Amino acid sequence: MAKESFTVTPWEVKGDIDYDKLIKKFGVQRISNKELEMLDRLAPLHLFLRRGMFFAHRDLNVVLKEHEKGKKVVLYTGRGPSGHTHLGHIVPWIFTRWLQKAFKAKLYFQMTDDEKFLVKDLALNKTKNYAKENALDLIALGFEPKDTKIIYDTEHIDELYPFALKIAKRTTFSIAKAVFGFNNSTNIGLSFFPALQAAVAFYAQEREGGKDVQCLIPCAIDQDPYWRIARDAAPYLGYPKTATILSKFLPGLSGPAGKMSATDEANAIYTTDLPEVARKKIMKAFTGGQATVEEQRKKGGNPDLCTVCQWLYLLFEDDDKVMQQRLEDYRAGKILDGENKKYLADKVVAFLEEHQKKREKARDVLDKFSLTS
Amino acid sequence: MAKESFTVTPWEVKGDIDYDKLIKKFGVQRISNKELEMLDRLAPLHLFLRRGMFFAHRDLNVVLKEHEKGKKVVLYTGRGPSGHTHLGHIVPWIFTRWLQKAFKAKLYFQMTDDEKFLVKDLALNKTKNYAKENALDLIALGFEPKDTKIIYDTEHIDELYPFALKIAKRTTFSIAKAVFGFNNSTNIGLSFFPALQAAVAFYAQEREGGKDVQCLIPCAIDQDPYWRIARDAAPYLGYPKTATILSKFLPGLSGPAGKMSATDEANAIYTTDLPEVARKKIMKAFTGGQATVEEQRKKGGNPDLCTVCQWLYLLFEDDDKVMQQRLEDYRAGKILDGENKKYLADKVVAFLEEHQKKREKARDVLDKFSLTS
Repeated sequence: MAKESFTVTPWEVKGDIDYDKLIKKFGVQRISNKELEMLDRLAPLHLFLRRGMFFAHRDLNVVLKEHEKGKKVVLYTGRGPSGHTHLGHIVPWIFTRWLQKAFKAKLYFQMTDDEKFLVKDLALNKTKNYAKENALDLIALGFEPKDTKIIYDTEHIDELYPFALKIAKRTTFSIAKAVFGFNNSTNIGLSFFPALQAAVAFYAQEREGGKDVQCLIPCAIDQDPYWRIARDAAPYLGYPKTATILSKFLPGLSGPAGKMSATDEANAIYTTDLPEVARKKIMKAFTGGQATVEEQRKKGGNPDLCTVCQWLYLLFEDDDKVMQQRLEDYRAGKILDGENKKYLADKVVAFLEEHQKKREKARDVLDKFSLTS
Repeated sequence: MAKESFTVTPWEVKGDIDYDKLIKKFGVQRISNKELEMLDRLAPLHLFLRRGMFFAHRDLNVVLKEHEKGKKVVLYTGRGPSGHTHLGHIVPWIFTRWLQKAFKAKLYFQMTDDEKFLVKDLALNKTKNYAKENALDLIALGFEPKDTKIIYDTEHIDELYPFALKIAKRTTFSIAKAVFGFNNSTNIGLSFFPALQAAVAFYAQEREGGKDVQCLIPCAIDQDPYWRIARDAAPYLGYPKTATILSKFLPGLSGPAGKMSATDEANAIYTTDLPEVARKKIMKAFTGGQATVEEQRKKGGNPDLCTVCQWLYLLFEDDDKVMQQRLEDYRAGKILDGENKKYLADKVVAFLEEHQKKREKARDVLDKFSLTS
């Protein structure tokens, strides 16, 4: 059998990802019309659901059924703070805000400033600082301190540790090797870390009322291995199994394969990028167009290969009719790359200008979001 | 080469321990007359030093030299709370109190309620409860809250975690396997734990003034692997290497091999034993005597095989002249086992009665010793 042409782990996503294969490989479920209908009853479906950006799950059906019977839901997601936030990072956060309103749920958000110290060549004060910077982006998306608690691992480890211990006791190094691809060169901090990431699921449940509360985790699919650990541990801790709703990756600007990389600056747009810098990056994006304007008018472009079309489809053009028309026109050669890029750039710049204002205002309330505030 | 007839690891001590071999195997130094002379200048030598109960070290000579030049010393020791305290446990604590006075040093005492949860079939509330019970025994030995801080891992993890992370980042699973005998079945909590035990050395230094403070750890020699991890990490963290002063094990009552076991109740005397229960245990102890009184009068006893003689020598008979005379008389058949046992039992009972009073009083001040009090 041929080697997989893509890799998806919590630390590496690369290649041309086949999401159908990934669903089988991870043993997760595709989100069906049934779940979409139930979600639609809670709130008009978010773009990410209408366009399949969030596409898979574990036990979302259970959460929806239990929620309809009156069971409380708590949300949990997070971020490994190793640099500034880019647009790929905020995809699950935007969706989490939508879920929060739909389920009227509290959110626990974990900043794994410890993990990024253990994995990267970064000092602890750097990852701690990025954690606070990244938190500004979360807050700027509209979360409220009364129902959003940010856990900074290095500050709040005492809250998580009893849960992490119970998970760790049941997780051998063999299991961690199999699930995360650890080996004997892995440091003992990183090999313990999965227990700490899984711990928040139970901590959040416990804080919000105990074993009758259901935890739902919106995140990108590369985080799934952590939730396998959490789900395996759940019966021993006496909680319902952790449920997830999983997203694809937003492609980078240099091509549709893999996910937006935080290490390739031109490939990503950061929330801290000057709007004009962002515009320039988009004007250089990889597209599905032809070599010349004449050719594109004649043959049309291919949206499937076009990062500009994909960014509009997956994130920036919320209007379904407008989007469909634009894709048709792109395929027909009626929309050219220059115009398409400008159309996207205007939207990205508008988003950034607004976001950056909110982001600065968030500094004043940052402390109010801290778990222990 | 023949397999070693003894085992000494942090989790298992068994067999007829050859301490000379252990010194070579662990690569530690024997305490020399030079160190004894220097210690004697600080305070009249403790029984444990005069009789070789504390017998080995790492960098004790460095600590003593630096201390003579005016450098501050901080002490660190601890306990894995998996049951009540027995007399073997308090050997290093008694000695730590002596060191504390000699060096005029603060003590940081770690209660590893997490480790014992991870290693044993014990619930977390049990190990936490034993931690508080064990702390009463520490306090009863004369420590003062102003210069003694007890760290309960599950309560104070947030203080230790930044140090533990830095140690963990430099400790691969391979190293942990080699040093602690971990394997793939070891749980990921236990494999991380060494970083947490090593962390206190640096935490204590930092709290007491930073990188110019020298940390000295009095403990039984089975804990040495942890300090290898600490010493390897020290240069990266920028602290002087952790120094140790290491003890032999107090033998159990059923024979001179191994160490007093907390799982064999008749073998150990607990600080919580009723005095009369303790007396009965001693009256049944394994001795170096002969089969009959007549034979013992004729041939004499062997103190080297006699747990009663050893307990007197190592712990309960502080007077060197009296001790020497008693050993001579035992060898000569002038002291019989019955009398010898009664002599020890009287001392043990007197100790327990006094200790148990102090132990109960300690409940009132327990909280004052907590790190965060």
